[in-house]
Amino acid sequence: MSKEITSRSADYSQWYNDLVIKGGLADYSAVRGCMVIKPYGYALWENMRDVLDKMFKDTGHQNAYFPLLVPKSLFEAEEKNAEGFAKECAIVTHYRLKADPDNKGKLMVDPEAKLEEELVIRPTSEAIIWNTYKNWIQSYRDLPLLINQWANVVRWEMRTRLFLRTAEFLWQEGHTAHATKDEAVAETIQMLNVYADFAENYMAVPVIKGVKSANERFAGAEDTYCIEALMQDGKALQAGTSHFLGQNFAKAFDVKFSDKENKLDYVWATSWGVSTRLIGGLVMAHSDDEGLIMPPRIAPLQVVIVPIYKGNDQKEVIDGKAKEIVAQLKAVGVRVKYDDNDQSRPGWKFAQYEMQGVPVRLAIGARDIENNVAEVARRDNRTKESVGLENIIAHIQTLLVDIQTNMFKKAKAFQQSHITPVDTWEEFMKVLDEKTGFVSAHWDGTGETEEKIKELAKATIRCIPLDNPLEEGKCILSGKPSTQRVLFARAY
Amino acid sequence: MSKEITSRSADYSQWYNDLVIKGGLADYSAVRGCMVIKPYGYALWENMRDVLDKMFKDTGHQNAYFPLLVPKSLFEAEEKNAEGFAKECAIVTHYRLKADPDNKGKLMVDPEAKLEEELVIRPTSEAIIWNTYKNWIQSYRDLPLLINQWANVVRWEMRTRLFLRTAEFLWQEGHTAHATKDEAVAETIQMLNVYADFAENYMAVPVIKGVKSANERFAGAEDTYCIEALMQDGKALQAGTSHFLGQNFAKAFDVKFSDKENKLDYVWATSWGVSTRLIGGLVMAHSDDEGLIMPPRIAPLQVVIVPIYKGNDQKEVIDGKAKEIVAQLKAVGVRVKYDDNDQSRPGWKFAQYEMQGVPVRLAIGARDIENNVAEVARRDNRTKESVGLENIIAHIQTLLVDIQTNMFKKAKAFQQSHITPVDTWEEFMKVLDEKTGFVSAHWDGTGETEEKIKELAKATIRCIPLDNPLEEGKCILSGKPSTQRVLFARAY
Repeated sequence: MSKEITSRSADYSQWYNDLVIKGGLADYSAVRGCMVIKPYGYALWENMRDVLDKMFKDTGHQNAYFPLLVPKSLFEAEEKNAEGFAKECAIVTHYRLKADPDNKGKLMVDPEAKLEEELVIRPTSEAIIWNTYKNWIQSYRDLPLLINQWANVVRWEMRTRLFLRTAEFLWQEGHTAHATKDEAVAETIQMLNVYADFAENYMAVPVIKGVKSANERFAGAEDTYCIEALMQDGKALQAGTSHFLGQNFAKAFDVKFSDKENKLDYVWATSWGVSTRLIGGLVMAHSDDEGLIMPPRIAPLQVVIVPIYKGNDQKEVIDGKAKEIVAQLKAVGVRVKYDDNDQSRPGWKFAQYEMQGVPVRLAIGARDIENNVAEVARRDNRTKESVGLENIIAHIQTLLVDIQTNMFKKAKAFQQSHITPVDTWEEFMKVLDEKTGFVSAHWDGTGETEEKIKELAKATIRCIPLDNPLEEGKCILSGKPSTQRVLFARAY
Repeated sequence: MSKEITSRSADYSQWYNDLVIKGGLADYSAVRGCMVIKPYGYALWENMRDVLDKMFKDTGHQNAYFPLLVPKSLFEAEEKNAEGFAKECAIVTHYRLKADPDNKGKLMVDPEAKLEEELVIRPTSEAIIWNTYKNWIQSYRDLPLLINQWANVVRWEMRTRLFLRTAEFLWQEGHTAHATKDEAVAETIQMLNVYADFAENYMAVPVIKGVKSANERFAGAEDTYCIEALMQDGKALQAGTSHFLGQNFAKAFDVKFSDKENKLDYVWATSWGVSTRLIGGLVMAHSDDEGLIMPPRIAPLQVVIVPIYKGNDQKEVIDGKAKEIVAQLKAVGVRVKYDDNDQSRPGWKFAQYEMQGVPVRLAIGARDIENNVAEVARRDNRTKESVGLENIIAHIQTLLVDIQTNMFKKAKAFQQSHITPVDTWEEFMKVLDEKTGFVSAHWDGTGETEEKIKELAKATIRCIPLDNPLEEGKCILSGKPSTQRVLFARAY
């Protein structure tokens, strides 16, 4: 195989890039920090989007679309939010190019087409959306307003990595408005649960649900809830966030409603999002040295059938059977492809589909047809078995469920074995350096200590888990009293 | 009703804006020329997108995603394309904001964060995509490459109108690469047919398929095919375009492939797109003074059920039956809503759903339940009838098909009666001014005459219809010999 993958143990980072690029998920682009999402990667994103979209609609949300460009004066209205994103904003200053008089055939920015007010490409849409909500909300009858947007956003990151951190990425951002604080908090937690459900039951990636420390909060939020996943190198990945925004944006944009007693009050807000970053997490959570491993429920392709034959006579016999199986699988909703392309050999195809992580591979040869069997290989544990064709459809359906379950179990076992309680700084550093994963340790609750730990250990507080048991202890660094353990990790 | 619509005859343009805004499709935004697509409008777009997406996939295309931002040096590589779009490009010149020292709490563009090379927000993606294709195409085995992208684009228009012409809009853009000219031309025409199929059979908007004159071609294309629709004010609307790009982009980006004989040649290209502009066309083609009229096949909501009752006892009885009908309709794939909101009266709801163009409305009162009937109202011709509940599901299914057919027939009759052959300049102007619609007239084939006609009559050549009969004649303006009639119209 020409498309060899660097082994995970040799160079984790290169292994990841190889998987993404050679697995056909994405490619670098000519634009600094931006990537091209290739058809296979985009098909994966479409499956993820469709599942999430249904979850959002089932919980009462509607989609809408707001402008890409945000006037600077709106962008800066909520000061904390603006401050948090100011350093990574792409700014539109002109609206026209013209022929460059000094450079035949080239263009230059037309200095006469300077905008009176600069436009920020949305790094997130609270500002433009809350400026719109002002016109949509007058009374309690207009609430709750439950809206989601599928969009691209731009954050000018200095160090980028395919999917994990790119200047432009695709995401969804929910923005809701409520009459009461309780309702807004309930919405924030509801959406966190939706994300956890999606990560665990579709991506087969176990997550820990928690709250961020004040230092790690979304700029402009009162509380940031998150799901944290664990990658195979023991580093954590923030996989989704759900923010309780309090009345901050309502105050910044003057969004008030009159309640049933005709009393005016500011509206309560939430926002929540997941992005194409999830694809990076999926890759890092499941893949091996042979390539990607796709969880069946969102795999672009769930089953591939490869014929093994000599000459047209054999091919015709296999074709007939294979097409029958394809039709039957499609009828029960399985995403299947029959790859009878005669330009490449079966061995090459096997390696290719392993690289792309297709959950189930069927190989059918002429003798298999005689024996009424097919060779069924599963990608997750790389086992093979001969299966009778009379039961093949039911067998594959069961197998897809098994693979999904098995992938989650494996990742869950890894996660569970990588949550390590420690009580001394020495242990803390040792676990981070050697065992890796989440470290559960006492913290005195101050931002200063948190910052110091970050400097010393390159580890951050990933979250304070929901329903964390209270427990007296001493801060791992400062030795000051603490009431609970929090989860630290090195992270993407 | 508070949400009154300006009548079409009084002020066509205001009528259109009222429909879009009061019908809940879109809203103005704080950003010049950009709109907010509201939930009802976005649901319509989702339905359109899903149908088109399936058509694209059924014809072998895959989706992918390319960067929003295009470096100026790539943008200018295909000179004609660059020249065509240079005047309407939003340009990113900086990547950071900073606190404004003279203005507490405000931000300013950080002059130290100036980009070395400016970035153009894509007005269309040929440049960034062909720059990528260069790396993806080496051999005939890599062809055809059949890719579509769903994306937002920005074109800095000076005069904007909701949906019809906005600075930012949503669209799909197909970009394909082929080994031969014939194959690329066939692709161009195939996608034109897909668009025509979609417009006529889903949007119920009849279209004329044709080729643009050289003056009206897409910048960088060898040939631009289009579908042209007719609005109720007799103006034409370009509803979709499919471009045969020849080898222009392959040459600009040096994209060559080796054929089976190992001979190198430039790749042949097409691109094709439709946008949220279609929604503007849908509104103008079908609506009336009561509001929007949605074609059932893409209507966000196909059926609404309104209960008419006094007191809880009546309500309960109606609820039971209505929920049964809702479940049965959903089971057969009908998009239905039971609106038992007790905050508004039935009359208000009727007007509201008429405004939003919901194809079928059921009203059920207590006496209807006794008589085992419901009042069924259709939006397109505003007729009502009493229908027995025992057959209501089948009746509604048939009705939805009837409405779809009827809407198309009506629009088709209007279109057919508004294609007027004329042979003198006097007639030409008279038809444009009084009867309106398409005018079929001889033209000498020169860009100069075309330009002059545009100046004098404010009408453009909409297209040279496909399979246009050859016919000797004299140009309507110049009197020079002509071999065929072409379609002129005033247009959006």
